[in-house]
This record gives sequence, C-alpha cells and structure tokens, in this order.
Amino acid sequence: MATIAMKFGGTSVADIERIRHVAALVKREVERGNKVAVVVSAMAGETNKLVAWTNDAAKPPVEGVRGNILQAIPDQREYDVVVAAGEQITSGLLAITLNAMGVKARSWLGWQVPINTSAVHGSARIEGVPASDMTRAIENGEVAVVAGFQGVAPGVRISTLGRGGSDTSAVAVAAGIGAARCDIYTDVDGVYTTDPRIVPKARRLEKIAYEEMLEMASLGAKVLQTRSVEIAMLHRVPTRVLSTFTPDVGGTLLCDEEDIVEKKPVTGIAYSRDEAKITLHKVPDRPGVSAAIFGPLADAGVNVDMIVQNVSEDGETTDLTFTCTRGELNRALAAIETHAKDIRYRAVTHTADVAKVSIIGIGMRAHPGVASTMFRTLAEKGINIEVISTSEIKVSVLIAEEYVELAVRALHSAYELDAA
Amino acid sequence: MATIAMKFGGTSVADIERIRHVAALVKREVERGNKVAVVVSAMAGETNKLVAWTNDAAKPPVEGVRGNILQAIPDQREYDVVVAAGEQITSGLLAITLNAMGVKARSWLGWQVPINTSAVHGSARIEGVPASDMTRAIENGEVAVVAGFQGVAPGVRISTLGRGGSDTSAVAVAAGIGAARCDIYTDVDGVYTTDPRIVPKARRLEKIAYEEMLEMASLGAKVLQTRSVEIAMLHRVPTRVLSTFTPDVGGTLLCDEEDIVEKKPVTGIAYSRDEAKITLHKVPDRPGVSAAIFGPLADAGVNVDMIVQNVSEDGETTDLTFTCTRGELNRALAAIETHAKDIRYRAVTHTADVAKVSIIGIGMRAHPGVASTMFRTLAEKGINIEVISTSEIKVSVLIAEEYVELAVRALHSAYELDAA
Repeated sequence: MATIAMKFGGTSVADIERIRHVAALVKREVERGNKVAVVVSAMAGETNKLVAWTNDAAKPPVEGVRGNILQAIPDQREYDVVVAAGEQITSGLLAITLNAMGVKARSWLGWQVPINTSAVHGSARIEGVPASDMTRAIENGEVAVVAGFQGVAPGVRISTLGRGGSDTSAVAVAAGIGAARCDIYTDVDGVYTTDPRIVPKARRLEKIAYEEMLEMASLGAKVLQTRSVEIAMLHRVPTRVLSTFTPDVGGTLLCDEEDIVEKKPVTGIAYSRDEAKITLHKVPDRPGVSAAIFGPLADAGVNVDMIVQNVSEDGETTDLTFTCTRGELNRALAAIETHAKDIRYRAVTHTADVAKVSIIGIGMRAHPGVASTMFRTLAEKGINIEVISTSEIKVSVLIAEEYVELAVRALHSAYELDAA
Repeated sequence: MATIAMKFGGTSVADIERIRHVAALVKREVERGNKVAVVVSAMAGETNKLVAWTNDAAKPPVEGVRGNILQAIPDQREYDVVVAAGEQITSGLLAITLNAMGVKARSWLGWQVPINTSAVHGSARIEGVPASDMTRAIENGEVAVVAGFQGVAPGVRISTLGRGGSDTSAVAVAAGIGAARCDIYTDVDGVYTTDPRIVPKARRLEKIAYEEMLEMASLGAKVLQTRSVEIAMLHRVPTRVLSTFTPDVGGTLLCDEEDIVEKKPVTGIAYSRDEAKITLHKVPDRPGVSAAIFGPLADAGVNVDMIVQNVSEDGETTDLTFTCTRGELNRALAAIETHAKDIRYRAVTHTADVAKVSIIGIGMRAHPGVASTMFRTLAEKGINIEVISTSEIKVSVLIAEEYVELAVRALHSAYELDAA
C-alpha cells in the first residue's frame, strides 16, 4: 500500500472509450490498496483546436488597421485561460467515469490544488505544490484527478506550463503529495537507447539515471519534458515511463545513479533537428567582443546553445559560430544586424540545414576515449563535424542535417547499443 | 459615462467572426465613455458537446455490471467542471480579441469574480457577487469579460446555473458592480407580445414591467431565464433585451411598473407545451388528503403547478387533478403509486397531450372582466378549459395541446395586441 501518482497523455484520453480504459488502470491501483493521484492531459486534438482559436482571435479585424498589427500574438494570460480548458474537461470526465465505476474520485484544477507557478504565462514554471487539502482527500481514499499542464500564477490567474507540461505536473504533484512513485503512461513502452523510428535495433532501457534522462530530454529525446526530469531528480521521485496500452510489459525506471549496476560508457543517443547555425566572419579578436555579440542576443530572448570561436589566423580577427533553435534564427539575425556597429563583423552567414547528435552516459566519466570513438565513427562515414560541445556525461556534435539518420545508426552500433 | 453590463448568448459568439462582432459592440460602448462588464455564454454547440461527453462518461463500463447501473447520471459536481469549460473558452477568446483591437480587457471566471452560488450543482442559485477586485479593474478602464453560467459553490468547487443561466449571471453581475443598466444581446430584437412564430402579428414591446416579464418567463416565454428577471426586479436593474445583429433598432426595456404609461389589460400571452396532467379519481373527501398526496410528490422533487379539486358529488369522494412538467411525470406517478395506501384513490389517469396558455398584464388589476374575455374567446373556438389558475396579473388555462396555436392567436386578437 502506497501513495502513487499516475499520468496519462493526450492520446491515452483521446475519447470516452480510452478514458474508460484509463479509469480501469486507476481502479486496478486502488484495488491493489494504493492511494492515487492521476494527472491528465487534454484529449488529443483539443489543445491544437483551442490554440488555433486563440491565434484566430488575435488577428487584427478584417475591416482595416484599427487593431495593432504587431499584436498578432494572443494575450498570453488569456491564451492560458482558453487552453487550460482542455485539461479541465478531461479531469472532469475521468472523475465522472471513475465515480460511475464505483471509485470515489474528484477533479482538482491547477488553482484548486494549488499548483503555484511563475507569472510567465504560456510557459510558466512550477514553483510549489502545497496540496494539503488534496493530500487529505487522497489519504481519505478519494482518487484525485488533477488537470495537467496548468497552474495558478501570481494574481490568481490561470497559467499553463508549455507543451508537454503535463509530465511536469505529474512529477510535481508526486513530489507535492509525497508519492512513492510517479508512473508516466504514454504511447511508447519506455525510454529507448535512441529513437526506434530511426534505429529499429534500439533497445528499451530498464533503468536510466535522472542525470542521463535530463540530458536525453534536453538534447532532443521527446519521451519526457525536460522540466519534469529536473523535478524528479531534485525531489528524488522514482519515475516510471510505461505504455497505456500494454502497461504490464516493459517500462523504464528513472532512478539514482547508484541504483544502476551495469554502466556502459554510453546509455543513449539523442538528436535534434531544431537547430540553426550562424557564423560571424572576421570579428575583431579582442576582449569584449563576446559580450558585444551575446548581450544583444540574450536581450532578444535568443537561447544560444553551442559556440565555437576559431583560432585567429591574422592575430586581429576571428570567425565565431553559434547555434540556436530554428524558431529563434530570424530574431538572432535581427539582433546582430541591429548591433552591427558595436560588433564590427565582416559578414554573417547562416543555415538551418544542421542537426545536433549527442551521446549520453554516466559511464563516460569512468571510460576515457568515449568522445574519440564518436569522432572516428563519424569520420569513417564521411560526416563532417561543424561544432562540438561536451559536458561530463555527454558529447554533442553539429552536423549537416542530411546525415542525421546515418550518424545515429553508426553511433548506436559503435557503442554496442544494438539489440541482439 | 456609465458602468454597464452587456450579455451575449451562444449564437452571438458561435465562432471567431461573431466574437469579433461582439468585440466591436463592446468597443463601441468603451468609445462612448462607458465602463463595461461583458458576460458571455459558451459558443453555440459547445455545451451540448460537453454534456454529451459527461453522459457518455457516466455510462457503466461495457464489460458488464461492474458499475452501478442506477448511476447513469454523471456526478453533478464533475459535470459542472466539464461544462463550465465552454464559457471559460469564450471569455478568454473575447478578451484576446478585445486586446488585439486595442481595448484593454481580461477574463473573469466564476470563481475569480467570485459569483457565489448554492451547492446545488448543475442548477445552482446565485447568492452573491462580491466583485470588489473586478469592480476596481472596471473602474480603472479595463473591460471585464465574465464567463456566464458558472459560479463557485461552497468548498471552492465550480458550479453551473442550469440552461440559460448566463442571463442570470449578467443581471447578477450588473447588480454586483452597481451597473446603470444590463443589456442582454440575443438573436431576437426584444420581447414580443407573444411568440412571433405562432402569431406573425405579434408586436415588440417597448417596455415591460419586471413583474410581467417574470410571469412571461416562468409561463413559457423563452427570451429570458426566470431567475434573471427575479434578480433584475429585486435589485431594480434596468435591463434591455436587444439584437446582437441589429443592435440599433428595437429592443425592450424591463422597468418599474410606474415607468409604463400605457397600461393595456393584457401585455402578453405565453404558452408552454412542457405540461403533463395527472388525475386521481375518487379520493376520500376529507381533511389531510391533500397532504397525503402532495407531501410525497414534494419529497420526490416534483414541482406541482396547477391544482383543481372537483366538488364532491357523493359527499365522500372527489377527483383531484394537478399538473407538472413532462420530465417529472414518471416520477410523480411512481410517488403516487408508492403511497397508494395512504392516499386511497380508486384510479389514476394521466396525459402529456396538454399545454398551458397564459395571459399576463399589470393592467389586469384595474380592468375587471379580463378573465371572462379569455374564457369566452376560447369557448367560441370550441376549446375546452381543463384547469384554471390565476394570480393578480395573470390567468393560465390548461387545454389540449393541439389547440395551442389557435388559442394563442385568438387571444392575441381578442386583447387587441395584433400589430396594425
């Protein structure tokens, strides 16, 4: 008997039949003697519909230029009010279904729990889940059906966490109610060594360390939202990823490093196509030039990821390359052009035809030479590395996008991750 | 310059184009120097979709009798959570649209205003609108977009007011913020002497007294929800009914009796087909028998409307007839059969092929003979009156349903209500 959190995504609650299936999984846990909080996403498709409406509503009126043309982005606080309705609907429907099955349940919306967040509407950050009333209700044997993806921001306004935020809701709720574990039900049966759509020989991992999962998520693996892994790691919430449709087979446990016996040098391979590269040619090679470049980029809200500065050939100028997401490319170029006088570059070139491939593994710390295996493997396939960035447990390289599948497959074999 | 409340129903906000039209009407009021609270319903069709989902979710699981068969009604508190999402979405979308048009606006949900209600989920009653924060925001020039139909019940749970409840929200909000008037925008251009679909010569009323409107609404006129008129009357909120699509023509003002100059004996004619009639034959004609009948009916939640008890022919037994809504008929019959021993009737008959036709007018008080004109008019058309009920400002009769149109048209002419 334990208190557990369960989380179901949009495809798991896509219609009433599937919600009934979810209710049956919840009921099974209750019948095992567990106390349950279940976090739900919006029904698949609902969020997209609501987002489209908000974009449509934000368009300037047809009659002319009465509205502010620049304001084609919907008011973010009101965007949250509209979009949060999706999870509200699912939580009510699941509570109705559970009650109809004889399982006592009630819905809890973000502001009712409360799930306190920052004021950054549209991508708010969970700051605390002081769920005392809800915890009491759970202890009294009532299933708490929590609307995922939403919270309450300062000023008692509805906030949302950004796409995929329900994972984060689930782990934060698990931490808030002191759950023994958090089960993330999804449409895959666990975390794989890499994307099985690219590498059919990808293997499901029985366990993965929080730190590794954090790198996997932030480097492109889509199975869990990065922030959810951060919270799981911070609060040491044992978190399982498992399939809604085959809940009794497979699954992957996120756990402490010490709980993993077999430590290969590389645990998984992630990739991201959402990369763009900008190169500034012939910038002065002197102190302060980095600040002149990256200050304006930060002010423009551009998240610079990888950076490489060439060794100066003439002793006076150098080339500087950095990456950001494709969505930020235009903003980055605009910021640089606006500050051209301060930066003093000869030319700027850019491309979005790049991708980032990363190898991740806590075993890397104990195994020297892991990076050189990567570089050699890519070289053997004729793949040019444009930028490199490393941390203690990962190595990322920027390559031409057309080589992504080839690179991932070659590395998967090179690090002996292929299934037998 | 005044503070006003505006209300738009489901067809007025059916899609983004119409929401933009609503926003333009709101903007016009703001540009006139008014401070505005605008109450919105769910987009047409949304509520029906959500209600259907809740009913579907409440069905017992297909596999068998694991669920409680009797519980096919969705948990009412969770029903409210699901259905209230409809108005939440509209309020956010209208706020986005207004902001995009350069009109500062924010949405207010029932729990945020707050609109305090009773705990009768699904048909809660507004108990107060202590909207101090919202009033301050309005005074500071921000348009308050209020989600209609919803409130917050004891226990900080979302409640809804029952179908048509947004009218009530609007008038209660108008009273709560001390608005100078409440404009109810709808798909007709005012209150008519009777249903124009039955009587093409029906006339729009420039003004109608609160008391008359209350009778009209509760006796079948669908233009406003009864409870909204009650609140308008109680708080003396000048309330206008006008068309969203032709806002500058027509309209009807609900006002005090004294503000109406021309007082005809009859102001309007209402009808309701939602009537059922039950007759108990040969019940003992002695004290206490009414209590034996109507006590169990009240316990069963049946709202008995008209009652007629025949004069006893044999001095020992009598026949007793009463009406209720068609939806309550089966419950009423069950309650009577359960208490057959206490009531001691010989037989019970019932029919749903009846309708109620009512004449309403504050002028009735000053004009004797109004009722006899009604009875004579119906007799001339060969229409039999089954039950009669009267109050100071109305006379209602129960007739066979097939005569409804004929009766309404004949009475409309008899009381000189036909348009020239």
